[in-house]
Amino acid sequence: MALMVKKFGGSSVANAERVFNVANIIVDDYKKGNNVIVVVSAQGDTTDDLIEKAREINPDNPSKREMDVLLTAGEQISIALLAMAIEKLGYPVISLLGWQAGFNTNTNHGTARINSVNTDRMKAEIDKKKIIIVAGFQGINKYDDLTTLGRGGSDTSAVAIAAAMNADRCQIYTDVDGVYTSDPRKVKNAQKLEEITYDEMLELATLGAQVLNNRSVELAKKHNVELEVLSSLERKSGTIVKEKVKMEKTLIRGVAKDTDVSVISIIGLKDNPGTAFRVFNALAQNNIEVDMILQSVGRDGTKDISFSVKRSESANALSCISALKDNFEYVDLKSADDVAKISTVGAGMESHPGVAAKMFEALFDSNINIQMISTSEIKISVIIEEKYADKALSVVHEAFFN
Amino acid sequence: MALMVKKFGGSSVANAERVFNVANIIVDDYKKGNNVIVVVSAQGDTTDDLIEKAREINPDNPSKREMDVLLTAGEQISIALLAMAIEKLGYPVISLLGWQAGFNTNTNHGTARINSVNTDRMKAEIDKKKIIIVAGFQGINKYDDLTTLGRGGSDTSAVAIAAAMNADRCQIYTDVDGVYTSDPRKVKNAQKLEEITYDEMLELATLGAQVLNNRSVELAKKHNVELEVLSSLERKSGTIVKEKVKMEKTLIRGVAKDTDVSVISIIGLKDNPGTAFRVFNALAQNNIEVDMILQSVGRDGTKDISFSVKRSESANALSCISALKDNFEYVDLKSADDVAKISTVGAGMESHPGVAAKMFEALFDSNINIQMISTSEIKISVIIEEKYADKALSVVHEAFFN
Repeated sequence: MALMVKKFGGSSVANAERVFNVANIIVDDYKKGNNVIVVVSAQGDTTDDLIEKAREINPDNPSKREMDVLLTAGEQISIALLAMAIEKLGYPVISLLGWQAGFNTNTNHGTARINSVNTDRMKAEIDKKKIIIVAGFQGINKYDDLTTLGRGGSDTSAVAIAAAMNADRCQIYTDVDGVYTSDPRKVKNAQKLEEITYDEMLELATLGAQVLNNRSVELAKKHNVELEVLSSLERKSGTIVKEKVKMEKTLIRGVAKDTDVSVISIIGLKDNPGTAFRVFNALAQNNIEVDMILQSVGRDGTKDISFSVKRSESANALSCISALKDNFEYVDLKSADDVAKISTVGAGMESHPGVAAKMFEALFDSNINIQMISTSEIKISVIIEEKYADKALSVVHEAFFN
Repeated sequence: MALMVKKFGGSSVANAERVFNVANIIVDDYKKGNNVIVVVSAQGDTTDDLIEKAREINPDNPSKREMDVLLTAGEQISIALLAMAIEKLGYPVISLLGWQAGFNTNTNHGTARINSVNTDRMKAEIDKKKIIIVAGFQGINKYDDLTTLGRGGSDTSAVAIAAAMNADRCQIYTDVDGVYTSDPRKVKNAQKLEEITYDEMLELATLGAQVLNNRSVELAKKHNVELEVLSSLERKSGTIVKEKVKMEKTLIRGVAKDTDVSVISIIGLKDNPGTAFRVFNALAQNNIEVDMILQSVGRDGTKDISFSVKRSESANALSCISALKDNFEYVDLKSADDVAKISTVGAGMESHPGVAAKMFEALFDSNINIQMISTSEIKISVIIEEKYADKALSVVHEAFFN
C-alpha cells in the first residue's frame, strides 16, 4: 500500500468525459489498495474566462487580492465536479479547497509562497479511506484571505502535499507521456527518458521543454519527492524525476531549443573599473533576468559586452543601459531578436569531456554559426541565428542519439 | 452616519454594466458617510450553469456536500467582480466569502440554517472604513465544510448580517420598486405601499407575491430588522417592512392570487372518531403541506373533508389517503387542479369587521362562486375556479382600492 499524489491540469478535466477519464485513473489506483490524493487545476478555459470577466470590469489593475478571490473559484468548481464523478463510480471521496487542505502561504497575492501545509485534515480523511481531491494553485494567508501560487501553482501544490504527507510518489499527468530527449514533434528519433535527475529537469524546464514547472521541481529536489511525468490519456509509465538515476549509455539527457531570446550588445565600452558590475547591477535592480554573458576585448582599450535576455525584456534592457550616464561611454548599443538558444543537458557530461566538441562539430558540419557559448556543469548552450534553430536542434540531437 | 446592509440578486449583477450600476448605488450611499455592507448573489445564470455541469457528471444524486462546494463558487465570482468595480470607482472595498464574514451554519448541506454570525472580521473592516461585499447564500459548518442556505439564501444572509451588526436598515434590491397592493402587471390601480408589517409581508409572500423570501422576513421579524424592498434600476424609496406601521386609510394591505393550488376532497367519509386526525397525520408524515381545510356534514352519518395543497403535491396526497386502510371508509376521493386562491391581507382587518363581507360581495357581483373559505387574524382566502382568478383579483382589489 502506497500513498500516491496525482496532479491533473486543466485540459485533463475540460469536460465531463475527461473528468470521468481522470476519475477512472484515480479509482484504478485506489482499487489496488493505495491511498490517493489528487490535485486538480481549473477546467479548460475557466481561468481565462474569469480573467476576461475581470478585464471587463477593470482593464487596468484590479487588486491582486480580489483577483485571487476570483480565480480560486475555478479550482473550486473542478474539485467538486471530479469528486462527483468519483461518487458516481461508487468510491468514497471528499474535495478540499486549498485552505481546507492546510495550505498556509505568505501574503503575496498572485504569487504566494507556501509557508506550511497543515496535514491534519488530509490525514483524517485518509484514515477514513477517502480519496481526496485538492484544489491546486491556492492557499490562505495569515489574514484568512485567499491566495494563489502563480504560474504552475498546481504542480507546486502537488509536490508540497507529497512532501508534507510523505507520499511515495508524486505523479504529474500531462498531455505527453514523459520527458523526451528533444521535442518529439520536431526531432526524429526523440527518445522518452525512463529517468532524469532534478537538476537535469530544471535545466530542461528553463530551456523551454515546458513539461514541469521549475518551482515544483526545485521543491521536489529540496524534499526529495520522487516525481513521475506521465500521460493522462495513455495508461503507461512515464519519466521518473529523482535525485540520482542509474547510468545510461547516453552522456546527455536532452537537447532543447528556446526562441524566447534576445541578445543585447554594448560595443566599444570604455574599460573603466566596475563597468561590468554597473551594467548587471542596473539590470538586476530593474528585475531583468540575464541568462548568458559574453565579454570580449575590443579595440583601443575598450571591451564589448553581450548578454541574452527574454525577448520581452529586450526594450527594457536597452533603456536601462541607455540610462547609465556618468563615466559610462560606449560606441554602439544594439539588440538582436533573430536569435535562438540550443542547449544540451546531462549530468553525465561533467565527467565526460568531448560533449561540447561533439555539439560544435555537428553545428559546424551544417554551416551554423555560433554567436555565444555558455556552459555549466550539466549544460552547454549556444546562441545561433533563429532561422537555423530547428535544424540545429535536429543535428545536435542526431549527434548524440543516433 | 448609519450602517446600511444592501442585498442585490443575481440579475442585478448579470454583466459588467449592471455590476457598475450596483457599484454606483453602493458608492453613493458610502459617500453620504454611511457604512455599507453588501450581500450579493451569483451572477445571472451562473448557478444554473453550475447545476448543469453537475448534472452532466451525475444526473441522479451528486452529494449535497459537493454541490455546496460547486455552487458557492458562483457567489465567490460575483463578490470579486463587484469589489473590482468599486476599486475602479476609487473607493476602499473588500470582498468576504460566507465563512470569512463569520457565517456558521448547521451541517445540513443545501438547506443549512445559520447558527451564528461572528462579526469580528466585518467590524474590523468597517473600522478601516471599507465597503464590505459578502457572498450571500453560503456559510461554513463545524467541520470547516462549505454549506449553502437554500432558496432565497442571499436575502437571509443580508438579514442575518443586519441583525448581527445592528444595522440601521437592510435594503433588498429587486427588479420592482416595492411591495404593491396587488400585481401591477395584472391589476389596474395597484398601489405601492409605503410600509407593511412583517406579518402582512409573510402572508403576502406565502400567497405568491414573491418579492421577499419568507425565511428572511421571519428572521427580520425575530430580530426586529427594518427591511426596505426597492429597485436596483430606479433611484427612489421602496416599501419599508417593520413591526408596526402607521395607520393608513385602507383596511387591507394587498390582494394576492395563487394558482399553485389543488383541492382534494374525501366524500362520504364514515364518521369514526379520529378520522380527521388520521388524514392530516398521514399527510404530515409524508411532508405534504396542507393549506386550507374544510369539513362539512355529509349524508347518513358521514362527513366530507376538503383541503388544499400545492399542485405538485396533489398526486402524493391522493396516494397517501388511498393508502389508509383499516376503519377508513369513504364514498369518493377526488382532486381538482382547476382552482385558484385569492387572498386579502391586512393587519387592520382584525379590528374592522366587514372586510370579509366586502370581499364576498365583490365576488358575488361578478358571479364568481366561492368553493372554500379560510380566515386568519390578518388574512381572508377563498378558493375559486382558476379561470376566474384574474377577474377575481381585479374586482376584489377594486372593492378595497378604488
